[in-house]
Amino acid sequence: MTERLVVIGGDAAGMSAASQARRRRGPEDLRIVAFEKGAHASYSACGIPYLVGGEVGDVESLISRRPEVFRDEFDIDLRLGHEVVEIDLDRREVTVRDDRGGRGREPFDQLVIATGAVPARPDLPGADAEGVYGVQTLDDGVALLEALEEKPRRAVVVGAGYIGLEMAEAMVRRGLEVSIVDGAEQPMGTLDPDMGVLVADALRDLGVQVCLGEHIEGFEESGGRVRAARTESRTLPADLIVLGLGTRPNSALAEAAGVPVGETSGIRTNRRMRTPVEGVWAAGDCVETFHRVSRRPVAIALGTHANKQGRVAGINLGGGYAAFPGVVGTAVSKICEYEVARTGLTTAEAVEAGFEPVGEIVESTTRAGYYPGARTMKIKMIADRGTGRLLGAQIVGQEGAAKRIDALAVALWHEMTVEEMTGLDLSYAPPFAPVWDPVLIAARKAAERVDRLDGRA
Amino acid sequence: MTERLVVIGGDAAGMSAASQARRRRGPEDLRIVAFEKGAHASYSACGIPYLVGGEVGDVESLISRRPEVFRDEFDIDLRLGHEVVEIDLDRREVTVRDDRGGRGREPFDQLVIATGAVPARPDLPGADAEGVYGVQTLDDGVALLEALEEKPRRAVVVGAGYIGLEMAEAMVRRGLEVSIVDGAEQPMGTLDPDMGVLVADALRDLGVQVCLGEHIEGFEESGGRVRAARTESRTLPADLIVLGLGTRPNSALAEAAGVPVGETSGIRTNRRMRTPVEGVWAAGDCVETFHRVSRRPVAIALGTHANKQGRVAGINLGGGYAAFPGVVGTAVSKICEYEVARTGLTTAEAVEAGFEPVGEIVESTTRAGYYPGARTMKIKMIADRGTGRLLGAQIVGQEGAAKRIDALAVALWHEMTVEEMTGLDLSYAPPFAPVWDPVLIAARKAAERVDRLDGRA
Repeated sequence: MTERLVVIGGDAAGMSAASQARRRRGPEDLRIVAFEKGAHASYSACGIPYLVGGEVGDVESLISRRPEVFRDEFDIDLRLGHEVVEIDLDRREVTVRDDRGGRGREPFDQLVIATGAVPARPDLPGADAEGVYGVQTLDDGVALLEALEEKPRRAVVVGAGYIGLEMAEAMVRRGLEVSIVDGAEQPMGTLDPDMGVLVADALRDLGVQVCLGEHIEGFEESGGRVRAARTESRTLPADLIVLGLGTRPNSALAEAAGVPVGETSGIRTNRRMRTPVEGVWAAGDCVETFHRVSRRPVAIALGTHANKQGRVAGINLGGGYAAFPGVVGTAVSKICEYEVARTGLTTAEAVEAGFEPVGEIVESTTRAGYYPGARTMKIKMIADRGTGRLLGAQIVGQEGAAKRIDALAVALWHEMTVEEMTGLDLSYAPPFAPVWDPVLIAARKAAERVDRLDGRA
Repeated sequence: MTERLVVIGGDAAGMSAASQARRRRGPEDLRIVAFEKGAHASYSACGIPYLVGGEVGDVESLISRRPEVFRDEFDIDLRLGHEVVEIDLDRREVTVRDDRGGRGREPFDQLVIATGAVPARPDLPGADAEGVYGVQTLDDGVALLEALEEKPRRAVVVGAGYIGLEMAEAMVRRGLEVSIVDGAEQPMGTLDPDMGVLVADALRDLGVQVCLGEHIEGFEESGGRVRAARTESRTLPADLIVLGLGTRPNSALAEAAGVPVGETSGIRTNRRMRTPVEGVWAAGDCVETFHRVSRRPVAIALGTHANKQGRVAGINLGGGYAAFPGVVGTAVSKICEYEVARTGLTTAEAVEAGFEPVGEIVESTTRAGYYPGARTMKIKMIADRGTGRLLGAQIVGQEGAAKRIDALAVALWHEMTVEEMTGLDLSYAPPFAPVWDPVLIAARKAAERVDRLDGRA
């Protein structure tokens, strides 16, 4: 008998799951219906700031697979403009509302929940005014692009995390005067403050007005259009407000149906991406996963996790075996010529997890100092005082700096000590690194620090 | 009583050892004399091709510490132009010849042998003619620079390994017509042939005449100057010959004294870089080390190993504890806009070590395909058929490709399987990688291949 798979959400996680399931089970064995409430499926949400900034010329470039490819080549019944509004686990069916006002039900044997994340949207006066934009979906990106055609002069970006910084860059590229506001004392809360300060400096270098330790109290509007953002200490005139306040898992639908949700508000799954409910899987920004260093559940919205988790869910419900092993918190971002990367725990997170972290910042270069194009970079390595184990690393530098985080992420994965890391066989040639790669220098300095504190040296 | 340390060789390994020993033991405790036969100490030999090619403007740039810094700041008696010609282990002294014809003896309690490598120099007719250059020492580099001032028109590079390719690039940059000759069927014997062929293509793109599967039979000269290189099938006119045939450990001095040398002809040491002879240490290109994947001794001449090993020797003879954990065979090189990297074993080396290797090549991009500046790269991943363990990886691509080898080197270090690697938390953002980093795609393909061969999928 043909089994019926329903997928809720047609982006990275949902469509990866659907494609992988299809690879293993033909249409006679598994019927697949995927519902996507938006107008686009299978696109790179991470590319939206570059679409808005103009580095990416058109919306189509961000779409990795056209809807008809899923239909024609994968025999997946992908329905855009269809929002699932209820999951009934007893009757094993979902209720769907389409954008033309229709309403229907779809039965399932297997269900993949891939509802993504919802942007944090401040409940502030004026937040619904025209000119206030989120950057969550491709539709948001398109709306922002249209807004730019009206030649706005001043933009205020709310939130100085990754998305806020990328949007600040996009606005700078479009020639706007840009202010960025964040309640924290440094941008990039995912970095230690002594590394975040380097990002703040970089933003100022770009001509961005950086307003830290300030909270948005509301938006001023006239004629329904936003005119300014107001903090406790000033009023920032703005033709455009971009909300880049981060996201939380979009798990309300699942929770309402009785699918267990964790303390992060992400849907709980096991390693195979199955929820505690038989036949119900979840993947992507709507789930919580396991942080291998803190050993705590975390919810991290990131395309690469969504793709991997969707693939794992699809392989498993296709009859294979795959597991998502958790994360170490790796992330990377670019703000004009500056590259920022991190993995593992920050100092504060390490303390919270019960470690006694010690940190060392070193400054080095991306290539041999004498080789043309060598750029400066700073790298911070955080180690556990008791064991010398690497707990986290952060990089702020120029071209060629950030991708070094990957070697650190793999070292972290294997619970290496910083002392062990000093012996790692990393690649060296003058166009690629100084003879001691910055990663090795940082490991050495961190190991020396641990030794000193231990009274061994 | 003051102990006496003699260091033979004043480059990376020797001076790292001396500096580290000094850090831990003051001049009253340890007297340090270092003998260097050449005119320069503590320089980047790896930078010579870039000096010759003109990317690096002057010799001084390649010198990391001036001789007077060692003397004045480290209290190390560094003597340039002094060659140690004999080690007497019974009398614990070395015999030294200086470049003004003097001869003397120097007693030691501790000895560091850091004599580096000797270039393979073919025993061929005409190999001693004027116009035939090695690229081993900074003095060689300076000689080549001088030769270039005579505006030679045609260069033949002998040997298509790293150094040969880098010198071919240097000659191209200097506007010469360049031919490169190698007896192997592909350049870069440290890559699999199906990856080496990409390097051959890259060389041809640069306008280099690539002569593979051909052996140099001799050099033609007239008036004592080289005029051509002769292979079994042709005569290549040349105003300049560059020998880039690789090196072997310069261990003759040590061996003559009775310090054990291994099958690679490298000096044998333990993890702490001590030779089997009490109080005698060795480090750098003159030693053999342990390959963590093949579990065999190897001799790999590379500045980064030399620095690490010298540091380890110096810490240990300074009374601390440090160990050199061996290598996984990581290397990287740049030939104009092409980047080449490798780690672990080639397919042939894996077979030799008793594995049954399976390989997958994938083509991807350095950034998200839609992001400006995305460049193509190919990555080959070699896994053990029986266990799925990663055995090696090779990358040929354009800017941003090669440094990815580091994450692979760390994975290899920890004996990860390619299946495990598919879950690695590597950094993702459109300016840095596609949503599936090429490393992850290659791991996935290799894992699928292992599964298929195993009948599991």
